[in-house]
Amino acid sequence: MTKFNYEQRPWWGYAYEAAMGAMEDAKMTMAGIDAIVFSAVSSAGGGEHQSHKVSLLSGLFKTNVPIIELPSVCGGGGVAFWTALRLLESAGLNNILVLAGEKLVDNRAEVITDWILSAAERVIEQPEGLLFPVQNALVFQQYCQKYGGSHDDLELIAFKNHQNAVLNPKAYYYKRPVTMEQIKKSPVVADPLRLMDCSLSVNGGAAVIVSKDQAGIEVAGSGFATDYILTFEREDKTHFKATQLAAKAAFEQAKLTPKDIQVAEIHDAFTSVELISYEDLGFAEPGKGGELIRSGRISMGGEMPINPSGGLKAKGHPISATGLAQVYEIVNQLRGNCGERQVKDVKIGLTHNIGGAGGSVTVHIFKKN
Amino acid sequence: MTKFNYEQRPWWGYAYEAAMGAMEDAKMTMAGIDAIVFSAVSSAGGGEHQSHKVSLLSGLFKTNVPIIELPSVCGGGGVAFWTALRLLESAGLNNILVLAGEKLVDNRAEVITDWILSAAERVIEQPEGLLFPVQNALVFQQYCQKYGGSHDDLELIAFKNHQNAVLNPKAYYYKRPVTMEQIKKSPVVADPLRLMDCSLSVNGGAAVIVSKDQAGIEVAGSGFATDYILTFEREDKTHFKATQLAAKAAFEQAKLTPKDIQVAEIHDAFTSVELISYEDLGFAEPGKGGELIRSGRISMGGEMPINPSGGLKAKGHPISATGLAQVYEIVNQLRGNCGERQVKDVKIGLTHNIGGAGGSVTVHIFKKN
Repeated sequence: MTKFNYEQRPWWGYAYEAAMGAMEDAKMTMAGIDAIVFSAVSSAGGGEHQSHKVSLLSGLFKTNVPIIELPSVCGGGGVAFWTALRLLESAGLNNILVLAGEKLVDNRAEVITDWILSAAERVIEQPEGLLFPVQNALVFQQYCQKYGGSHDDLELIAFKNHQNAVLNPKAYYYKRPVTMEQIKKSPVVADPLRLMDCSLSVNGGAAVIVSKDQAGIEVAGSGFATDYILTFEREDKTHFKATQLAAKAAFEQAKLTPKDIQVAEIHDAFTSVELISYEDLGFAEPGKGGELIRSGRISMGGEMPINPSGGLKAKGHPISATGLAQVYEIVNQLRGNCGERQVKDVKIGLTHNIGGAGGSVTVHIFKKN
Repeated sequence: MTKFNYEQRPWWGYAYEAAMGAMEDAKMTMAGIDAIVFSAVSSAGGGEHQSHKVSLLSGLFKTNVPIIELPSVCGGGGVAFWTALRLLESAGLNNILVLAGEKLVDNRAEVITDWILSAAERVIEQPEGLLFPVQNALVFQQYCQKYGGSHDDLELIAFKNHQNAVLNPKAYYYKRPVTMEQIKKSPVVADPLRLMDCSLSVNGGAAVIVSKDQAGIEVAGSGFATDYILTFEREDKTHFKATQLAAKAAFEQAKLTPKDIQVAEIHDAFTSVELISYEDLGFAEPGKGGELIRSGRISMGGEMPINPSGGLKAKGHPISATGLAQVYEIVNQLRGNCGERQVKDVKIGLTHNIGGAGGSVTVHIFKKN
């Protein structure tokens, strides 16, 4: 993956750097790549809007292999990864390059804001004010009514992820510590969510090569589920059904349970989403996510660190690239390549990537052989 | 497929109608569908711009199954079909709904024009005037310089496709005959291409269900290749390499040759593209496409009718829906369901779908068992 930053490179510049890194790591060249699967959505609607990105990548990588684009807003990286794993079962597709890159943040704030708005339901919910922070604030309000729960727990999640990012050289908040006081005093965005509950929009890219020859790290389980874009149509207003279904599929395929996971990257688009996801993924009983963060078990040094990379909160969240950056983190944790933020002796890890307000979710389980 | 028309329904309205038709035909309900694969690009940048279409379809079809979006401009339907066939090889994915819908034509001409422009290379070629008709005019000019060739042959192609559409109740030009004089006198768009050399922008949808149980029609061959978006970077300036590579892959998989094909739907975005594609697909030697159209062999009543549906030229071209509408036509030809435009006793057919100016191409070969 690239550093997550605010440089003004096009989305494909970030994707290209990440792809070159993945090929160097795999000791491969494009001659060995049978297909490219990618996600890159932030350019839509902008000045550089190029809708035939498939053909753009053909020229960029000087290849004529099949290339497919898999948009699914913030869940695009995970969906691309899920799809690539299945394409790998086809004859002739032995090595697939999966990549994502985004230039989300630039000097055209109106264009970018409009694009982000386009990832929520625009006809019925959005005119009523249901932007993403509001949707998630409502979900957490309902969670608190049903189970109890307090904003104090969310502050602990933000603090944990910022502490982790300080040790990650590719995170936006690398060597930029944030204090608990800064977190507590950050401005309210949508009550009870504050600015420091929200993930950080950044630019960046990430890439992975998946191979029939698994090269040391196996994808043991892979799940994907979707949910209705109209959040009020969903039965459960406090949890995310798509996460539950995707996790069930992944754990069943891997023949593992949540207790087997030793390190995880969870989609903390908001700190409240991380908390609720502990429960959806099976790491805590419903209503018990707060106990998990307070226990210290998921902090660095605990038995199952969550978001050692810093997460979307403090590493940064470049839309489609997030899902693949999670894979990058877990693979490197299992390989023991993570330096100061290395979790000790981990052999099984999990990634969890959400699109929209829980509308498309992938869960992947990785095993070191 | 839906009728191709100018009704003002959203893209997903067309897709939904087509999907219901496919399920009725397959005697299935959503309960039997394990995944949805779709393409729908015309809404991008418009007022109804909804970038999390994956989640929109989850709500529309009331399902939580995996749903993936496969944009590849005018080639999106074929790319979605290619991908769905490969997903079908995965455990648990036994029946996949593949669909596309577009509302291309509405009262926001500027938005739509800008969207279509976004499918070509915008930074280097487009500022020099290389819009799609110009690109294709230049390709045909170079073809004529190299091989000879005359606009008269293109007029025959337009006339053939319009004659066929008159017999197709779902075509825009159904019961609307066009004379050779109208074709010859239509205004020049980009010399030598005239208005009647260009395909017809319409709204519409199409859907296909692919199943492990092949139900009478087998996909014997499936090929997909890409090419550089900068047309001047390509080696061959008179033909489309991606078509040649995709056709080679499809014929090899099917263990068939072009001589075995009895009916075909070819991507006639421009009449010149249909002519050149005869050669790229192996139906004629390089430079001999004109002889093929003049021979009458590919007209209705000939030995291998091409574009019995009327093609993009006269049935209409609703971007992503085109690739699936081609599949709809060939499957119905093989089934003998095509009424007045039925090609007699056909058992092997081919579809050919292009994205952009040859930047992403799929070729599929169908066999009646």
